[in-house]
Amino acid sequence: MTDTASARMAVLAAEGGITTPLGFRSAALHSGIKTSDLDLVILAADVTATAAALFTSNLVKAAPVVLSQEHLRRTGGRVRAIVVNSGCANACTGDDGMRDARSMATMAADAIGCPAEEVLVASTGVIGVALDMPAIASGIATAARALTRGQGSSAARAIMTTDRFPKEGTVTVRTERGSFTIGGMAKGAGMIEPCMATMLGFLFTDAVVDPPLLHRALQDTAQQTFNAITVDGDSSTNDSLVALASGASGITVDEAIYPALVEGMVALSRELATAIVRGGEGATKLVAVTVSGAPGHSEAQTVARTIANSLLVKTAVHGGDPNWGRILAAAGRAGVVFDPARAMVRVGGTLLFENGLPHDDASPQAAEHLQGETIAIDVDLGFSPGASATIWTCDLSAEYVRINGEYRT
Amino acid sequence: MTDTASARMAVLAAEGGITTPLGFRSAALHSGIKTSDLDLVILAADVTATAAALFTSNLVKAAPVVLSQEHLRRTGGRVRAIVVNSGCANACTGDDGMRDARSMATMAADAIGCPAEEVLVASTGVIGVALDMPAIASGIATAARALTRGQGSSAARAIMTTDRFPKEGTVTVRTERGSFTIGGMAKGAGMIEPCMATMLGFLFTDAVVDPPLLHRALQDTAQQTFNAITVDGDSSTNDSLVALASGASGITVDEAIYPALVEGMVALSRELATAIVRGGEGATKLVAVTVSGAPGHSEAQTVARTIANSLLVKTAVHGGDPNWGRILAAAGRAGVVFDPARAMVRVGGTLLFENGLPHDDASPQAAEHLQGETIAIDVDLGFSPGASATIWTCDLSAEYVRINGEYRT
Repeated sequence: MTDTASARMAVLAAEGGITTPLGFRSAALHSGIKTSDLDLVILAADVTATAAALFTSNLVKAAPVVLSQEHLRRTGGRVRAIVVNSGCANACTGDDGMRDARSMATMAADAIGCPAEEVLVASTGVIGVALDMPAIASGIATAARALTRGQGSSAARAIMTTDRFPKEGTVTVRTERGSFTIGGMAKGAGMIEPCMATMLGFLFTDAVVDPPLLHRALQDTAQQTFNAITVDGDSSTNDSLVALASGASGITVDEAIYPALVEGMVALSRELATAIVRGGEGATKLVAVTVSGAPGHSEAQTVARTIANSLLVKTAVHGGDPNWGRILAAAGRAGVVFDPARAMVRVGGTLLFENGLPHDDASPQAAEHLQGETIAIDVDLGFSPGASATIWTCDLSAEYVRINGEYRT
Repeated sequence: MTDTASARMAVLAAEGGITTPLGFRSAALHSGIKTSDLDLVILAADVTATAAALFTSNLVKAAPVVLSQEHLRRTGGRVRAIVVNSGCANACTGDDGMRDARSMATMAADAIGCPAEEVLVASTGVIGVALDMPAIASGIATAARALTRGQGSSAARAIMTTDRFPKEGTVTVRTERGSFTIGGMAKGAGMIEPCMATMLGFLFTDAVVDPPLLHRALQDTAQQTFNAITVDGDSSTNDSLVALASGASGITVDEAIYPALVEGMVALSRELATAIVRGGEGATKLVAVTVSGAPGHSEAQTVARTIANSLLVKTAVHGGDPNWGRILAAAGRAGVVFDPARAMVRVGGTLLFENGLPHDDASPQAAEHLQGETIAIDVDLGFSPGASATIWTCDLSAEYVRINGEYRT
């Protein structure tokens, strides 16, 4: 990972993962839900950690999401452990699914020695299929005895479904009071695999952060990172993003230190979130769509998201075609009022449209940029001073259609 | 075309087209905008017709759209002729584009002998390229001398861009006062080809209809037909739907006859609109997504549209996979509140999800249905009595990606 955060406060590290911060342990194993590969992980705090979480906004919520929301509500943001399985989403499984999710929490709580409501559950995999509970039960019992400190790289592998590579990293946050660490991992290829439902993200820190502040930091972070990626606009039934703070570093985050915490969480989450897009099924390019000169931030994000989700823009990027007409037409239907004659469109920094007219002479230069793997699309809506926002997406390839058309058949 | 309208009032005919109704003539020719094929057409009323039109809601509007809106505003809905070219959209062409659109109207008006503001202009083809005005000028002069009565099938061919087949038809509307005819034609493959911007539709009738009533009928019709199709959710800069009434049949449409007019326009427009989806680039299946049991009509349409635009649903249909999980997850993110436990999902009439649980035993029967070319997806949101709406879409194939990724390069 590269250092995209300001060197001033938050430094991303090439090494490390979810349990690099002090006060956490993990164990991952193959329980038998998948035919092979790691498929179950327990993440545990040495003592009860403060917690914040964001879950899918989809009305159709998987059982583990419903259960975890209930537990967080009851404890007011206190978590001792998280059990995660891959291979089965436990979504659309009715009352039996809720009972299974509850059993997972109880089994982990019993093995670790904490109240069941201090355990969160996350599942990812096929929708509409029941969990193999005997496999899960024996997996939880074994994993609870095997919890170890360290980077937690096997945890990052155990939560994968069709991910092409694990996504993990750490960031060290330096403050006047001393340093603390944030470790993170994520899985998913955006919403590219809804039946493998879908995005899971975890951010652990050894700072001391009370639940309300941690929740605010997680919202601020998600807004700029995990909620700013899209693969195909489909949001899943299981999306979960969880932050835990063990406090083991002894560094307390208050309002003065808060910006450093958010900077660190954002720096790490941006790496994890863009890695999800980069690793998307069928994806060959990471595309940053930045809209500036917008009347407000939410308008900028709406236009950027509409461009990022346009099939015609995504196929043009895939085909290496700097098609500013498709970009402008997508912006024009986003529902945000602007004057097309004052808009500008750039691809890879090359100006292609301005004052209502194309710069077709610049097209070859923009086409050259589209041969790369990291693409920049910039649209200025012409308001001054205007707000801006970036959404990350990927190109749309025939491979995507093949994967999602052939899956399950 | 089959008779989908009630036999009581409106009867669809297998033969006939845009100028089958009395009082209209047309001429189509190859002017040179395209390298070959018909690319220019004049549609003319014998005397000034009443008119109504709907145009793209995209902020980025092509010059012919802006000009036609201006002309209709000035005349209050009176039109003598329409000039249409394919091969060049005259969109994003700045002041020069407006001047060219205005010239087209003036040249046609001069040749026919009417005020320029009684001429509408429609263009479809590549965005950001200037019209070949010498070719257009000579084409308009020649076509204006060649106007003939009849079906107008060459007009339906002249407005095609990458359409695989022309789309035209007529409907005879029987009323107590006598019969009148509606002829129609359309082009476009949905929004599948935004650079070939995009949907044009024309409905001519020989009934006597005043402009406000014709406008209301066109809105009622579009709502159920042309505005209820989607290919990829991208709306173009040139979309135009125009209705003209010549009055030549002598049958006057008032409030008593209005339902028959709308029934006829809807029956014809449904055929034309679904033909657009069927003929979409890369499309192999026509999919009717019907949402019922919704709290209101607009909520039903919102959910149906979200399902119809879901890449994951469209790829699953393409792959023959009756993936109710993707359908339900798309419904869940549409922004309409419902209880997933009360929802039902059917594919080809086969119940796949009910009471929060799948009916996986029925999966083979639904998979069999997906082998066909006309697919029915039905979702009941569980409100009673509920509203319903249908959106027509197509499957998403690797061929779509290939076409839109390779276009222009």
